[in-house]
Amino acid sequence: MVKFLKQVLATQLDVDLMSDKCGFLIEQLMELAGLSVAQAISKEYSPKQNQNILICVGPGNNGGDGLVTARHLVHFGYKPKLYYPKQPNKPLYQSLLKQCSTLEIPVIQNFDHGLEGIDLVVDAMLGFGFKPPIREPFGSVLKTLAKSGKPIVSVDVPSGWSVDDGPMDEHCVAPDMLVSLSAPKPCAGFFKGRFHYLGGRFIPRFLAEEYGLEIPEYPGSDQCVLIKSLI
Amino acid sequence: MVKFLKQVLATQLDVDLMSDKCGFLIEQLMELAGLSVAQAISKEYSPKQNQNILICVGPGNNGGDGLVTARHLVHFGYKPKLYYPKQPNKPLYQSLLKQCSTLEIPVIQNFDHGLEGIDLVVDAMLGFGFKPPIREPFGSVLKTLAKSGKPIVSVDVPSGWSVDDGPMDEHCVAPDMLVSLSAPKPCAGFFKGRFHYLGGRFIPRFLAEEYGLEIPEYPGSDQCVLIKSLI
Repeated sequence: MVKFLKQVLATQLDVDLMSDKCGFLIEQLMELAGLSVAQAISKEYSPKQNQNILICVGPGNNGGDGLVTARHLVHFGYKPKLYYPKQPNKPLYQSLLKQCSTLEIPVIQNFDHGLEGIDLVVDAMLGFGFKPPIREPFGSVLKTLAKSGKPIVSVDVPSGWSVDDGPMDEHCVAPDMLVSLSAPKPCAGFFKGRFHYLGGRFIPRFLAEEYGLEIPEYPGSDQCVLIKSLI
Repeated sequence: MVKFLKQVLATQLDVDLMSDKCGFLIEQLMELAGLSVAQAISKEYSPKQNQNILICVGPGNNGGDGLVTARHLVHFGYKPKLYYPKQPNKPLYQSLLKQCSTLEIPVIQNFDHGLEGIDLVVDAMLGFGFKPPIREPFGSVLKTLAKSGKPIVSVDVPSGWSVDDGPMDEHCVAPDMLVSLSAPKPCAGFFKGRFHYLGGRFIPRFLAEEYGLEIPEYPGSDQCVLIKSLI
């Protein structure tokens, strides 16, 4: 039903969206992407049973999506925390972090003790631009997460997986939910978790046709759509 | 249930949201505001019976919300058109208009014939910053709209109404739906249409408390909430 978008094409699509071809601003796309992740979470994990969410935030745009997700999750009744070890010195990310701070979202400094009392982990570390090797501290964090048994929601690409080829070894994280953004990347074909959602409801039809994307029908005014459920 | 936010305080709230106090960027707030308007429309006017929507766009931020609304309405299955007689020469508005053009949203030049075949009108002309007098062509447009009998959805403030004192005379528009943003302005107390929604689900709790706002509970991950329905 949904064609996979390879890494090189995902990168090109991103450029097209934010060039004169479409005229989007990164602040808009990131807002809609993060909102769609938060909405997918709210559809499958109720805030009563899954109030405590740790969001692991990477240094790039995937991390930015995670910061937006955190903010919306607060409004939806969750209590997220951030682990954000590599904070880039760019105004956009500083703004996103400031917005989280006004909602009193804590930022934990030490990941090792960070999983205590956590119901759900959002993996917003490495996205469709990822190329090996995995840099520290994310390699250690991913090992700890994989062993932890905590349910993981991965944003767009499970961190540490090859975007085009999937899990690189048996120690990789195995997310419970994957929220693909714009279109699933080939690694989504290796996803064995319970919920595969698509978010990022902003691709113009002409661009979807140009890239041969088969975008499923979103319900009503939802910002995410369930592609595949294993329950 | 919801305290009214007077014009002078609405202006101050906007400044606070986009200052270092909260760190929001206008692109984010406008995206969420426009999305909430589109979502409110989709909840009350089905795309099957109300496919043809004319969005009247003003020169300021209220107009920007309307451009974002138009874009999301396309994704929700509607066929909006824009009437945008005063287009400011600012990059943000040019980007928003470009985004609409990639979805093939037509821009009509002549308002007088623009209402033929239109099911619903979105009034995104004058917002919480409005002070009389009404400038042309908006005065003429509002007179035509008021006489037309077409159902109108007003964004934040019914255009031409005094923000604090409501309709200025008996010739004002009488919207069928009002979507207040952040918090209802005092003019919302004079609203006699069928659906009063609140959108703009982004106010941090500390700021709501500082302004004495009583924000109702939004359902689930919705970006809008029905405050009052007369049907």
